[in-house]
Amino acid sequence: MTSLRHNESLDGPQDAYLDAARACILDVGWRRTTLTEVARRAGVSRMTIYRSWADMPTLLGDLMTREWTAVVATTAGTDGLVDRMVATVRALRANELFVRIVEVDPELVLPYLLARRGRSQELILTIAEEAIRTGQAAGEVRKGNPTAIARALVLAAHGFVLSAHTMVDDRASEADLDAELALVLHRTLAP
Amino acid sequence: MTSLRHNESLDGPQDAYLDAARACILDVGWRRTTLTEVARRAGVSRMTIYRSWADMPTLLGDLMTREWTAVVATTAGTDGLVDRMVATVRALRANELFVRIVEVDPELVLPYLLARRGRSQELILTIAEEAIRTGQAAGEVRKGNPTAIARALVLAAHGFVLSAHTMVDDRASEADLDAELALVLHRTLAP
Repeated sequence: MTSLRHNESLDGPQDAYLDAARACILDVGWRRTTLTEVARRAGVSRMTIYRSWADMPTLLGDLMTREWTAVVATTAGTDGLVDRMVATVRALRANELFVRIVEVDPELVLPYLLARRGRSQELILTIAEEAIRTGQAAGEVRKGNPTAIARALVLAAHGFVLSAHTMVDDRASEADLDAELALVLHRTLAP
Repeated sequence: MTSLRHNESLDGPQDAYLDAARACILDVGWRRTTLTEVARRAGVSRMTIYRSWADMPTLLGDLMTREWTAVVATTAGTDGLVDRMVATVRALRANELFVRIVEVDPELVLPYLLARRGRSQELILTIAEEAIRTGQAAGEVRKGNPTAIARALVLAAHGFVLSAHTMVDDRASEADLDAELALVLHRTLAP
Protein backbone atom coordinates (compact mmCIF):
# COMPACT_ATOMS: atom_id res chain seq x y z
CA MET A 1 0.00 0.00 0.00
CA THR A 2 1.59 3.29 -1.00
CA SER A 3 0.56 6.44 0.75
CA LEU A 4 1.87 9.95 1.24
CA ARG A 5 2.77 8.66 4.69
CA HIS A 6 5.53 6.66 3.00
CA ASN A 7 5.98 8.42 -0.27
CA GLU A 8 5.61 12.18 -0.06
CA SER A 9 5.61 12.77 -3.81
CA LEU A 10 2.60 11.54 -5.74
CA ASP A 11 2.95 11.87 -9.46
CA GLY A 12 1.09 10.63 -12.47
CA PRO A 13 -1.94 8.42 -12.02
CA GLN A 14 -2.29 8.70 -8.23
CA ASP A 15 -2.47 12.46 -8.55
CA ALA A 16 -5.28 12.06 -11.08
CA TYR A 17 -7.13 9.66 -8.75
CA LEU A 18 -6.94 12.25 -5.98
CA ASP A 19 -8.32 14.83 -8.45
CA ALA A 20 -11.26 12.48 -9.04
CA ALA A 21 -11.83 12.03 -5.31
CA ARG A 22 -11.62 15.79 -4.76
CA ALA A 23 -14.22 16.47 -7.48
CA CYS A 24 -16.49 13.82 -5.97
CA ILE A 25 -16.22 15.28 -2.47
CA LEU A 26 -16.95 18.76 -3.80
CA ASP A 27 -20.01 17.36 -5.64
CA VAL A 28 -21.62 15.01 -3.16
CA GLY A 29 -19.65 15.31 0.08
CA TRP A 30 -17.32 12.88 1.81
CA ARG A 31 -19.89 10.42 3.15
CA ARG A 32 -21.23 9.64 -0.32
CA THR A 33 -17.78 9.40 -1.93
CA THR A 34 -16.75 5.73 -2.35
CA LEU A 35 -13.66 4.09 -3.87
CA THR A 36 -16.01 2.77 -6.59
CA GLU A 37 -17.22 6.28 -7.42
CA VAL A 38 -13.64 7.61 -7.42
CA ALA A 39 -12.65 4.81 -9.83
CA ARG A 40 -15.63 5.58 -12.07
CA ARG A 41 -14.75 9.27 -12.24
CA ALA A 42 -11.07 8.49 -12.86
CA GLY A 43 -12.00 5.99 -15.59
CA VAL A 44 -10.10 3.11 -14.00
CA SER A 45 -11.07 -0.06 -12.16
CA ARG A 46 -11.83 -0.17 -8.45
CA MET A 47 -8.80 -2.46 -8.03
CA THR A 48 -6.53 0.22 -9.51
CA ILE A 49 -7.65 2.70 -6.86
CA TYR A 50 -7.53 0.02 -4.19
CA ARG A 51 -3.88 -0.71 -5.04
CA SER A 52 -3.04 2.82 -3.85
CA TRP A 53 -5.47 3.19 -0.93
CA ALA A 54 -7.04 0.43 1.15
CA ASP A 55 -10.01 2.58 2.06
CA MET A 56 -11.50 6.04 1.76
CA PRO A 57 -10.07 7.38 5.06
CA THR A 58 -6.53 6.61 3.83
CA LEU A 59 -7.26 8.28 0.51
CA LEU A 60 -8.83 11.27 2.28
CA GLY A 61 -5.72 11.66 4.45
CA ASP A 62 -3.56 11.88 1.33
CA LEU A 63 -5.99 14.24 -0.40
CA MET A 64 -6.11 16.62 2.58
CA THR A 65 -2.32 16.53 2.91
CA ARG A 66 -1.91 17.33 -0.80
CA GLU A 67 -4.47 20.14 -0.62
CA TRP A 68 -3.27 21.88 2.56
CA THR A 69 0.38 21.46 1.52
CA ALA A 70 -0.47 23.24 -1.73
CA VAL A 71 -2.21 26.02 0.24
CA VAL A 72 0.88 26.46 2.43
CA ALA A 73 3.05 26.50 -0.72
CA THR A 74 1.03 29.37 -2.23
CA THR A 75 2.14 31.57 0.69
CA ALA A 76 5.84 30.71 0.35
CA GLY A 77 6.55 34.04 -1.36
CA THR A 78 5.12 36.05 1.57
CA ASP A 79 7.90 37.81 3.48
CA GLY A 80 8.04 37.29 7.21
CA LEU A 81 6.54 34.55 9.40
CA VAL A 82 3.66 36.70 10.67
CA ASP A 83 2.46 37.76 7.24
CA ARG A 84 2.87 34.23 5.95
CA MET A 85 0.83 32.77 8.81
CA VAL A 86 -1.96 35.31 8.30
CA ALA A 87 -1.90 34.61 4.55
CA THR A 88 -2.08 30.86 5.23
CA VAL A 89 -5.04 31.29 7.61
CA ARG A 90 -6.88 33.34 4.97
CA ALA A 91 -6.03 30.91 2.17
CA LEU A 92 -7.22 27.89 4.18
CA ARG A 93 -10.47 29.63 5.06
CA ALA A 94 -11.05 30.37 1.36
CA ASN A 95 -10.00 26.94 0.04
CA GLU A 96 -12.99 25.25 -1.66
CA LEU A 97 -12.22 21.76 -0.30
CA PHE A 98 -11.83 23.15 3.21
CA VAL A 99 -15.07 25.12 2.95
CA ARG A 100 -16.91 22.07 1.59
CA ILE A 101 -15.62 19.80 4.39
CA VAL A 102 -16.55 22.32 7.06
CA GLU A 103 -20.03 22.74 5.57
CA VAL A 104 -20.89 19.12 4.78
CA ASP A 105 -18.57 16.82 6.73
CA PRO A 106 -17.16 18.88 9.60
CA GLU A 107 -16.51 15.77 11.71
CA LEU A 108 -13.55 15.09 9.38
CA VAL A 109 -11.56 17.90 11.01
CA LEU A 110 -12.12 16.61 14.56
CA PRO A 111 -9.21 14.11 14.64
CA TYR A 112 -6.79 16.93 13.80
CA LEU A 113 -8.21 19.09 16.58
CA LEU A 114 -8.69 16.47 19.26
CA ALA A 115 -6.52 13.44 18.64
CA ARG A 116 -3.29 14.12 16.82
CA ARG A 117 -1.40 16.52 14.59
CA GLY A 118 -1.93 15.92 10.87
CA ARG A 119 0.83 15.97 8.30
CA SER A 120 -0.04 19.49 7.12
CA GLN A 121 -0.03 20.74 10.72
CA GLU A 122 3.45 19.20 11.10
CA LEU A 123 4.56 20.96 7.92
CA ILE A 124 3.30 24.32 9.19
CA LEU A 125 4.92 23.74 12.60
CA THR A 126 8.24 22.90 10.93
CA ILE A 127 8.13 26.05 8.80
CA ALA A 128 7.20 28.19 11.82
CA GLU A 129 9.84 26.67 14.08
CA GLU A 130 12.54 27.14 11.45
CA ALA A 131 11.55 30.78 10.95
CA ILE A 132 11.56 31.30 14.73
CA ARG A 133 15.07 29.79 15.07
CA THR A 134 16.34 31.99 12.24
CA GLY A 135 14.68 35.04 13.81
CA GLN A 136 16.14 34.23 17.22
CA ALA A 137 19.63 33.92 15.72
CA ALA A 138 19.17 37.35 14.09
CA GLY A 139 17.84 38.85 17.34
CA GLU A 140 14.48 39.57 15.69
CA VAL A 141 12.45 37.03 17.68
CA ARG A 142 12.32 36.70 21.45
CA LYS A 143 14.26 33.96 23.19
CA GLY A 144 12.49 30.79 24.34
CA ASN A 145 11.81 27.21 23.28
CA PRO A 146 11.16 27.57 19.53
CA THR A 147 9.04 24.40 19.48
CA ALA A 148 6.72 25.72 22.20
CA ILE A 149 6.53 29.14 20.54
CA ALA A 150 5.67 27.59 17.15
CA ARG A 151 3.02 25.30 18.63
CA ALA A 152 1.44 28.14 20.59
CA LEU A 153 1.25 30.26 17.43
CA VAL A 154 -0.42 27.42 15.54
CA LEU A 155 -2.85 26.75 18.43
CA ALA A 156 -3.69 30.46 18.50
CA ALA A 157 -4.27 30.40 14.74
CA HIS A 158 -6.64 27.38 14.82
CA GLY A 159 -9.60 29.47 15.96
CA PHE A 160 -9.00 32.04 13.25
CA VAL A 161 -9.14 29.32 10.57
CA LEU A 162 -12.16 27.43 11.89
CA SER A 163 -14.28 29.91 13.79
CA ALA A 164 -13.52 33.47 12.69
CA HIS A 165 -16.82 33.61 10.79
CA THR A 166 -18.75 32.92 14.01
CA MET A 167 -17.21 36.09 15.49
CA VAL A 168 -17.98 38.42 12.58
CA ASP A 169 -20.91 40.84 12.64
CA ASP A 170 -21.42 44.62 12.57
CA ARG A 171 -19.35 45.01 15.77
CA ALA A 172 -16.23 43.29 14.36
CA SER A 173 -15.40 42.50 10.72
CA GLU A 174 -13.27 39.68 9.34
CA ALA A 175 -10.63 42.30 8.50
CA ASP A 176 -10.69 43.50 12.14
CA LEU A 177 -10.11 39.94 13.35
CA ASP A 178 -7.32 39.29 10.82
CA ALA A 179 -5.66 42.55 11.90
CA GLU A 180 -5.90 41.33 15.50
CA LEU A 181 -4.34 37.99 14.49
CA ALA A 182 -1.41 39.78 12.84
CA LEU A 183 -0.96 41.89 15.97
CA VAL A 184 -1.13 38.82 18.23
CA LEU A 185 1.54 37.05 16.17
CA HIS A 186 3.78 40.15 15.84
CA ARG A 187 3.69 40.91 19.54
CA THR A 188 4.14 37.27 20.52
CA LEU A 189 7.34 37.02 18.46
CA ALA A 190 8.82 40.43 19.26
CA PRO A 191 12.12 40.36 21.24
CA MET B 1 -41.20 25.39 26.86
CA THR B 2 -38.83 26.95 29.34
CA SER B 3 -35.14 26.99 28.62
CA LEU B 4 -32.08 28.85 29.78
CA ARG B 5 -32.45 30.69 26.51
CA HIS B 6 -35.43 32.41 28.07
CA ASN B 7 -34.87 31.90 31.74
CA GLU B 8 -31.23 32.15 32.79
CA SER B 9 -31.75 30.92 36.33
CA LEU B 10 -32.71 27.28 36.77
CA ASP B 11 -33.59 26.36 40.32
CA GLY B 12 -35.14 23.43 42.03
CA PRO B 13 -36.39 20.47 40.02
CA GLN B 14 -34.94 21.51 36.63
CA ASP B 15 -31.51 21.73 38.19
CA ALA B 16 -31.93 18.17 39.50
CA TYR B 17 -33.04 16.96 36.06
CA LEU B 18 -29.88 18.45 34.54
CA ASP B 19 -27.89 16.64 37.26
CA ALA B 20 -29.52 13.38 36.14
CA ALA B 21 -28.71 14.11 32.49
CA ARG B 22 -25.13 15.00 33.38
CA ALA B 23 -24.65 11.73 35.28
CA CYS B 24 -26.12 9.79 32.38
CA ILE B 25 -23.81 11.47 29.83
CA LEU B 26 -20.80 10.78 32.05
CA ASP B 27 -21.91 7.13 32.32
CA VAL B 28 -22.95 6.19 28.82
CA GLY B 29 -22.23 9.19 26.61
CA TRP B 30 -24.53 11.62 24.86
CA ARG B 31 -25.80 9.39 22.07
CA ARG B 32 -27.20 6.83 24.50
CA THR B 33 -28.74 9.44 26.82
CA THR B 34 -32.49 9.75 26.21
CA LEU B 35 -35.20 11.86 27.85
CA THR B 36 -36.64 8.56 29.13
CA GLU B 37 -33.34 7.62 30.78
CA VAL B 38 -32.98 11.11 32.27
CA ALA B 39 -36.50 10.80 33.71
CA ARG B 40 -35.72 7.35 35.12
CA ARG B 41 -32.57 8.63 36.83
CA ALA B 42 -34.36 11.70 38.16
CA GLY B 43 -37.23 9.53 39.44
CA VAL B 44 -39.90 11.47 37.55
CA SER B 45 -42.08 10.80 34.52
CA ARG B 46 -40.91 11.37 30.96
CA MET B 47 -43.65 14.02 30.64
CA THR B 48 -42.15 15.96 33.55
CA ILE B 49 -38.80 16.18 31.74
CA TYR B 50 -40.56 16.87 28.47
CA ARG B 51 -42.35 19.86 30.01
CA SER B 52 -38.95 21.54 30.44
CA TRP B 53 -37.17 20.36 27.28
CA ALA B 54 -38.74 19.29 23.99
CA ASP B 55 -35.78 17.14 23.09
CA MET B 56 -32.30 16.11 24.17
CA PRO B 57 -30.45 18.77 22.10
CA THR B 58 -32.36 21.50 23.94
CA LEU B 59 -31.61 19.88 27.28
CA LEU B 60 -27.95 19.45 26.32
CA GLY B 61 -27.70 23.14 25.41
CA ASP B 62 -28.93 24.07 28.89
CA LEU B 63 -26.66 21.52 30.56
CA MET B 64 -23.57 22.79 28.72
CA THR B 65 -24.47 26.39 29.48
CA ARG B 66 -24.90 25.58 33.18
CA GLU B 67 -21.62 23.64 33.28
CA TRP B 68 -19.38 26.11 31.41
CA THR B 69 -20.96 29.05 33.22
CA ALA B 70 -20.03 27.37 36.51
CA VAL B 71 -16.48 26.83 35.23
CA VAL B 72 -16.18 30.51 34.33
CA ALA B 73 -17.57 31.42 37.76
CA THR B 74 -14.86 29.40 39.52
CA THR B 75 -12.25 31.74 38.02
CA ALA B 76 -14.03 34.95 39.09
CA GLY B 77 -11.60 35.43 41.97
CA THR B 78 -8.57 35.41 39.67
CA ASP B 79 -7.06 38.89 39.38
CA GLY B 80 -6.52 40.28 35.91
CA LEU B 81 -8.05 39.28 32.58
CA VAL B 82 -5.00 37.35 31.38
CA ASP B 83 -4.71 35.16 34.45
CA ARG B 84 -8.46 34.62 34.50
CA MET B 85 -8.49 33.55 30.84
CA VAL B 86 -5.61 31.13 31.38
CA ALA B 87 -7.35 29.76 34.50
CA THR B 88 -10.58 29.34 32.52
CA VAL B 89 -8.79 27.50 29.71
CA ARG B 90 -7.20 25.13 32.24
CA ALA B 91 -10.46 24.61 34.13
CA LEU B 92 -12.40 23.82 30.95
CA ARG B 93 -9.74 21.34 29.83
CA ALA B 94 -9.98 19.60 33.22
CA ASN B 95 -13.80 19.65 33.50
CA GLU B 96 -15.13 16.08 33.55
CA LEU B 97 -18.16 16.79 31.35
CA PHE B 98 -15.96 18.58 28.83
CA VAL B 99 -13.42 15.74 28.81
CA ARG B 100 -16.19 13.16 28.40
CA ILE B 101 -17.80 15.03 25.50
CA VAL B 102 -14.46 15.46 23.73
CA GLU B 103 -13.68 11.75 24.21
CA VAL B 104 -17.04 10.21 23.39
CA ASP B 105 -19.18 12.73 21.52
CA PRO B 106 -16.78 15.33 20.08
CA GLU B 107 -19.20 16.26 17.30
CA LEU B 108 -21.23 18.07 20.00
CA VAL B 109 -18.64 20.87 20.10
CA LEU B 110 -18.69 21.42 16.31
CA PRO B 111 -21.68 23.81 16.20
CA TYR B 112 -19.89 26.13 18.64
CA LEU B 113 -16.74 26.09 16.51
CA LEU B 114 -18.29 26.24 13.06
CA ALA B 115 -21.80 27.61 13.19
CA ARG B 116 -22.46 30.05 15.99
CA ARG B 117 -21.33 31.36 19.35
CA GLY B 118 -22.82 29.48 22.28
CA ARG B 119 -24.20 31.13 25.40
CA SER B 120 -21.06 30.38 27.42
CA GLN B 121 -18.88 31.84 24.67
CA GLU B 122 -21.03 34.97 24.79
CA LEU B 123 -20.58 35.13 28.55
CA ILE B 124 -16.79 34.84 28.25
CA LEU B 125 -16.76 37.47 25.47
CA THR B 126 -18.82 39.84 27.61
CA ILE B 127 -16.49 39.42 30.59
CA ALA B 128 -13.40 39.89 28.38
CA GLU B 129 -14.80 42.93 26.58
CA GLU B 130 -15.78 44.58 29.88
CA ALA B 131 -12.31 43.97 31.31
CA ILE B 132 -10.75 45.38 28.13
CA ARG B 133 -12.89 48.54 28.31
CA THR B 134 -11.97 49.02 31.96
CA GLY B 135 -8.29 48.43 31.15
CA GLN B 136 -8.43 50.88 28.26
CA ALA B 137 -9.96 53.55 30.48
CA ALA B 138 -7.15 53.00 33.00
CA GLY B 139 -4.50 53.11 30.25
CA GLU B 140 -3.50 49.53 31.01
CA VAL B 141 -4.80 47.99 27.77
CA ARG B 142 -3.98 49.17 24.25
CA LYS B 143 -6.50 51.20 22.29
CA GLY B 144 -8.68 49.53 19.66
CA ASN B 145 -12.14 48.06 19.14
CA PRO B 146 -12.74 46.20 22.43
CA THR B 147 -15.18 43.80 20.76
CA ALA B 148 -12.61 42.78 18.13
CA ILE B 149 -9.86 42.47 20.76
CA ALA B 150 -12.06 40.28 22.99
CA ARG B 151 -13.14 38.05 20.10
CA ALA B 152 -9.54 37.66 18.90
CA LEU B 153 -8.45 36.64 22.41
CA VAL B 154 -11.22 34.04 22.61
CA LEU B 155 -10.42 32.72 19.11
CA ALA B 156 -6.75 32.47 20.11
CA ALA B 157 -7.75 30.59 23.27
CA HIS B 158 -9.95 28.03 21.44
CA GLY B 159 -6.96 25.96 20.32
CA PHE B 160 -5.51 25.92 23.83
CA VAL B 161 -8.77 24.47 25.20
CA LEU B 162 -9.40 21.89 22.49
CA SER B 163 -6.04 20.92 21.06
CA ALA B 164 -3.24 21.72 23.52
CA HIS B 165 -2.86 17.99 24.32
CA THR B 166 -2.10 17.26 20.63
CA MET B 167 0.88 19.63 20.87
CA VAL B 168 2.39 18.20 24.07
CA ASP B 169 5.37 15.84 24.02
CA ASP B 170 8.97 15.84 25.27
CA ARG B 171 9.74 18.93 23.16
CA ALA B 172 6.99 21.10 24.71
CA SER B 173 5.00 20.49 27.90
CA GLU B 174 1.48 21.60 28.75
CA ALA B 175 3.04 24.08 31.19
CA ASP B 176 5.20 25.47 28.33
CA LEU B 177 2.12 25.97 26.18
CA ASP B 178 0.11 27.57 29.00
CA ALA B 179 3.04 29.93 29.67
CA GLU B 180 3.00 30.80 25.96
CA LEU B 181 -0.76 31.44 26.15
CA ALA B 182 -0.28 33.81 29.09
CA LEU B 183 2.46 35.62 27.16
CA VAL B 184 0.30 35.85 24.02
CA LEU B 185 -2.57 37.37 26.02
CA HIS B 186 -0.34 39.74 28.03
CA ARG B 187 1.45 41.07 24.96
CA THR B 188 -1.76 41.33 22.95
CA LEU B 189 -3.36 43.53 25.61
CA ALA B 190 -0.32 45.64 26.51
CA PRO B 191 -0.64 49.39 25.67
